[in-house]
Amino acid sequence: MSNEKIILGIDPGTTIMGFGLIKVVNKKMELIQMDELNLTKYKDHYLKLKLVFERTIEVIDNFKPDEIAIEAPFYGKNVQSMLKLGRAQGVAMIAGLSREIPITEYSPKKIKKSITGNGNASKEQVAKMLQNLLKIENLPKNLDATDGLAAAVCHFYNEGNISGNKKYSSWSSYVSKNKDKLV
Amino acid sequence: MSNEKIILGIDPGTTIMGFGLIKVVNKKMELIQMDELNLTKYKDHYLKLKLVFERTIEVIDNFKPDEIAIEAPFYGKNVQSMLKLGRAQGVAMIAGLSREIPITEYSPKKIKKSITGNGNASKEQVAKMLQNLLKIENLPKNLDATDGLAAAVCHFYNEGNISGNKKYSSWSSYVSKNKDKLV
Repeated sequence: MSNEKIILGIDPGTTIMGFGLIKVVNKKMELIQMDELNLTKYKDHYLKLKLVFERTIEVIDNFKPDEIAIEAPFYGKNVQSMLKLGRAQGVAMIAGLSREIPITEYSPKKIKKSITGNGNASKEQVAKMLQNLLKIENLPKNLDATDGLAAAVCHFYNEGNISGNKKYSSWSSYVSKNKDKLV
Repeated sequence: MSNEKIILGIDPGTTIMGFGLIKVVNKKMELIQMDELNLTKYKDHYLKLKLVFERTIEVIDNFKPDEIAIEAPFYGKNVQSMLKLGRAQGVAMIAGLSREIPITEYSPKKIKKSITGNGNASKEQVAKMLQNLLKIENLPKNLDATDGLAAAVCHFYNEGNISGNKKYSSWSSYVSKNKDKLV
């Protein structure tokens, strides 16, 4: 494995998708970029999904991440909001899967705990810690981008120790891990 | 508009995806194909999503449907199952959206009612009616494929009268329908 690796963190949502990219060189992180895709102005659900897909593909093709970390809440207010969130998650995931990039999911609690030590930390506390860790001069006004970045940093802290999270990379790696399933 | 049109109906699920294609010529339907993608043997959630995406893209590229109809339940047993279903729906939808094909969603009840006149009809009743309508010699043993076909036939009956359903096609059609939103 090379000593350099790029991790893309995504917080996919139906109105705002946050994402952040870090480069890991010799086990040290540095910030590449963080941004958000704000879909508030669009009402059409399909248009939102399309934009989430296109932006994720664009980021992947521009930065060629080696791994993707996704913030994925498993519980929500109601079935309707979870269905919508599931659609946005599925679309962000398939962007990565279609480029054969391994995906790992982390719950919001796990991400907060990995970064601040407290699973119930506020958005602001997480952002402040990221600012220190990655020497970010100015945090963005809107902290949705930092949620994506937080997923990437959480992945950096947890890789090699991801028994609690689902992971899947390419078909070939799936096959090599599941030889007993082959006829 | 041409007098000939192909409609792809999809029933996306996390274990089985059913799909069916009909050709509409001069307002008459004929069956092109129906099939299912059975994912029961795979445990990996990401692999399932990837296969749903790849199969949907394959069907679209092979048959070049003009419109896509998707069976989409809006309520489910619990948030967990709805999240998973949402992911599968999102992946099937983005396959169509990435090819700029207009999508319409129909609830299971609406599909059953459109085809049999009864929103609570059984899978078997829907299949029997489809068999008559499309002169299908032998129904498949497993009726999941007919669920996808049913969505296509429901769309044929309801197009031009879809106020209750969401529709979105390409960016250009979105723009032309939403001129007031342009700056």
